[in-house]
Amino acid sequence: MKERYSKKDFPVFKVRQLLEPGPIVLVSSSWKGKNNIMTMGWHSVMEFTPSLIGCIIAENNVSFEMIRKSKECVINIPTTDMVDQVVGIGNCDGDEVDKFEKFNLTPTPAKKVSAPLITECYANLECRIYDTKLIKKYNFFIFEVVKAYKATTPKYPDTLHYQGEGIFTTSGKVLHKAKNFTKFKNDVNF
Amino acid sequence: MKERYSKKDFPVFKVRQLLEPGPIVLVSSSWKGKNNIMTMGWHSVMEFTPSLIGCIIAENNVSFEMIRKSKECVINIPTTDMVDQVVGIGNCDGDEVDKFEKFNLTPTPAKKVSAPLITECYANLECRIYDTKLIKKYNFFIFEVVKAYKATTPKYPDTLHYQGEGIFTTSGKVLHKAKNFTKFKNDVNF
Repeated sequence: MKERYSKKDFPVFKVRQLLEPGPIVLVSSSWKGKNNIMTMGWHSVMEFTPSLIGCIIAENNVSFEMIRKSKECVINIPTTDMVDQVVGIGNCDGDEVDKFEKFNLTPTPAKKVSAPLITECYANLECRIYDTKLIKKYNFFIFEVVKAYKATTPKYPDTLHYQGEGIFTTSGKVLHKAKNFTKFKNDVNF
Repeated sequence: MKERYSKKDFPVFKVRQLLEPGPIVLVSSSWKGKNNIMTMGWHSVMEFTPSLIGCIIAENNVSFEMIRKSKECVINIPTTDMVDQVVGIGNCDGDEVDKFEKFNLTPTPAKKVSAPLITECYANLECRIYDTKLIKKYNFFIFEVVKAYKATTPKYPDTLHYQGEGIFTTSGKVLHKAKNFTKFKNDVNF
């Protein structure tokens, strides 16, 4: 397979660059020799260091138990040209199909977790469960990103942003406003 | 003041439409007769009903104590034409300036919370703290949206998506993919 992107290691404390804009993501997991993928849109950056991501993985997903048991996953960031795969993956069940095969996606072994990277995605974040406290009540997983990869080009990926009811927006113009910032050091949320 | 948007009540279980795409938001708060605003980008939808939003409000923000004590805030969604206000609000301190005055914004009384709505924003979500469990460890607040308002037009707002280092992307094209969905009922995360 010809790789769509040439990727480099990406510092884990910088993953907010990829996730804060709010793209839909593909979460890959592995358990007992079986791989799976789910589409996921409810996530938030939570901390720079350790690099923490919180997200909802509903318990009716096959991925829920696979991730809870393996304690690991990969958060993969697809681009707009993958929209039909993103929708298809969210609309079939991992206990009935092999989603890598069905959607013509290539699993690449990760370095630090058992779940595979989705090769075709723009970026891949290897994650380990960091805090289980809100899983039972809210299906809310807190992951630490332990290794990350990002395509070297384009600098600003064309990502998908889901709003429900089958409607996505894509990322649009890039606005450079750094000259108006005075306090980067404190911009934890911003 | 001439209102920029004509707004209508918006069902709280539908706020994922507004937040899942990942826009930067303005959080307004009120405590002991003083109003404040902060810019915030680390948030996630957590549930439809009750309508839950999780977000990080770092404790070095003046808003942190105001929201913790009043137990309330309003999450306001600005559009791209407000980018200079969004950046300015995130780069000054609420204990030194009145941000409504400095940034020429109009507070409108909310219906169910003490914090004011920012009139100029496209949508406003009145929120009450729902769960304090992760505030101490992660500065992570879980809010219930108790009332919401959305502009009647445009249908798809031009929102700002922050990626750090002074760089925003805006929302771009709208893609309608509902015909490819088979299981809306289960699309909790997606």
